[in-house]
Amino acid sequence: MTNPTTNPTTITAQPGTPFIDVVREFDATPAQVFRAQTDPDLLVQWLGPRELKTDLIEYDARPGGSYRYVQRDAQGGEYGFRGVFHAVVKDELVIQTFEFEGVPNQVAIETMTLTDLGGRTRLHTHSVYPSVEGRDAAISSGMEHGIRDSMDRLEELCTRD
Amino acid sequence: MTNPTTNPTTITAQPGTPFIDVVREFDATPAQVFRAQTDPDLLVQWLGPRELKTDLIEYDARPGGSYRYVQRDAQGGEYGFRGVFHAVVKDELVIQTFEFEGVPNQVAIETMTLTDLGGRTRLHTHSVYPSVEGRDAAISSGMEHGIRDSMDRLEELCTRD
Repeated sequence: MTNPTTNPTTITAQPGTPFIDVVREFDATPAQVFRAQTDPDLLVQWLGPRELKTDLIEYDARPGGSYRYVQRDAQGGEYGFRGVFHAVVKDELVIQTFEFEGVPNQVAIETMTLTDLGGRTRLHTHSVYPSVEGRDAAISSGMEHGIRDSMDRLEELCTRD
Repeated sequence: MTNPTTNPTTITAQPGTPFIDVVREFDATPAQVFRAQTDPDLLVQWLGPRELKTDLIEYDARPGGSYRYVQRDAQGGEYGFRGVFHAVVKDELVIQTFEFEGVPNQVAIETMTLTDLGGRTRLHTHSVYPSVEGRDAAISSGMEHGIRDSMDRLEELCTRD
């Protein structure tokens, strides 16, 4: 459910395609949103669903840099994610690979674009999975809840600054 | 046209999908094929269509490593390609991003798998583009000719060793 006091998050996953598109507007500048996406100290404050704790093991947001983080639930479950950065353009663009360690070697590629709306910012993440089945499995895993929580928490962080 | 004295290369690009699959068997071991894929000195000897000259600018085949190469034709045309390696597993697997610099920020992800057939090797490359249109444009650019030449040249190199 979308909190009515925040901007909505639109998640699109057309049947029969390997794509997931996430669009969200923020009452913040592209510089604020970009910083929250690429500064490890800020990233851990919003990445993931609220009920999980995120530990960044590595986060080197530059072309060729790597990242890895682990999310833990209250029952001791651990979920690891990793990837490398292909492109990082300040305040504009991040292109990175994305692998859930629970499904090794099924690697997606994500393109995150920021558009300046004049003080406000539109974030668009286009994810491409290696198969339609892999995309469907990711959606079925509860990813949508995690994305909505992440986007709401990112907005809270950006508007708190 | 496939040279009848070599193994065939199968290229599959189903309409309406962003995928390209290339399958080729080699009369060589996985170790030979993997080495030709990851050793820069060998890679330049087979990568690309025969009529182009390939210059490797950078080729660091390890997780987080980057690559860039430029292919030149006799008329002075230049075609640059770049990416980063997400995974490199000796004799088995390479996962890398792939960007044609002529179409910036449209980045594909490629998974190359080697299967040991007992002295012979099956190579399968699964490429995923960020859109169906981007995949179609890549195919229209003459990529298929380049792939067939590359695979034939790779076989020549592996069986010459």
